[in-house]
Amino acid sequence: MSNKKTNQDRIILGIDPGTIVMGYGIIHLQGKDPKLSTMGVLKLDKFADHATRLRKIFERTLSLIDEYHPDELAIEAPFYGKNVQSMLKLGRAQGVAIAAALYRQIPIFEYSPKKIKQSITGNGNASKEQVAGMLYSILDMKAFDGPLDATDGLAAAMCHYFQKNVSTGGKTYSGWKSFLTDNPDRKV
Amino acid sequence: MSNKKTNQDRIILGIDPGTIVMGYGIIHLQGKDPKLSTMGVLKLDKFADHATRLRKIFERTLSLIDEYHPDELAIEAPFYGKNVQSMLKLGRAQGVAIAAALYRQIPIFEYSPKKIKQSITGNGNASKEQVAGMLYSILDMKAFDGPLDATDGLAAAMCHYFQKNVSTGGKTYSGWKSFLTDNPDRKV
Repeated sequence: MSNKKTNQDRIILGIDPGTIVMGYGIIHLQGKDPKLSTMGVLKLDKFADHATRLRKIFERTLSLIDEYHPDELAIEAPFYGKNVQSMLKLGRAQGVAIAAALYRQIPIFEYSPKKIKQSITGNGNASKEQVAGMLYSILDMKAFDGPLDATDGLAAAMCHYFQKNVSTGGKTYSGWKSFLTDNPDRKV
Repeated sequence: MSNKKTNQDRIILGIDPGTIVMGYGIIHLQGKDPKLSTMGVLKLDKFADHATRLRKIFERTLSLIDEYHPDELAIEAPFYGKNVQSMLKLGRAQGVAIAAALYRQIPIFEYSPKKIKQSITGNGNASKEQVAGMLYSILDMKAFDGPLDATDGLAAAMCHYFQKNVSTGGKTYSGWKSFLTDNPDRKV
């Protein structure tokens, strides 16, 4: 018999680390449907110093891990960008967030922005508002009262949830679209 | 009266984090001259998985900090590179190393490869071998019996030492060249 948690009792932390803002969301898989545990943003533009921003990202990620005890970290990770300098900064922001998870020995899963949008809405080019609207429906929650960036972290967590298929009996769902196909009553 | 350590009793950790190899060196400033405490490399190409490489960089940096208790971290940090993907990976490697220092509340100082070469040899375009040779002279040590990448980390630590001017009475040295000017007996 395994000591592994069942799929019905898992916690996923999703983060979208950037150099201006970091969005995060945590879902708790208990029973049939995923539930929102928390979501929020860490605003970084108020810190002029790049090292301070990195420290804040590391500290917030570590404190989220220590407070909510996620089993997995899902991270939104673009694989290309405008220029080498912005990618270096982005890589550092990702690196410190990843380090917090590594330090707590939490498995890390990366998803591209396109993959996340595709997974949540069925459209890899969906707008931030479309992704947010779909998340509110899936999680049966009120619209988040704060910067929309928070939904980017939550979307990463939900994307990971869809990859793993945790709630409905062992089948792997590629995303919300196939989940709807198999669960027409959840259609919104 | 300050509790701050004197310049004569400081430890500097220098690292050059990359995705293939991480070089590191630690100098101890006790008395007039800097002394080598340790140097080495962490080879990463044997780990296929990128997340494992990041974990190894984080763990090694943290273990160096916990073993040698450096007061400062000097990091070799290129600010541009070939392409956005390699810069993202490099940024992540830097990020996890930086996170280890942030976690232990150690100040971080960044130097470009050119600045480090300039500081050690007086020539920003010096070869790895020239930098290594100069380091061996400055630190009065035998040639390192291992990959030359180790000297890159050590060079970052020495570069930082030269910026701070720690050993010779309060004057700021911009590098080995001006140090030699003021200390002709150390000329090699």
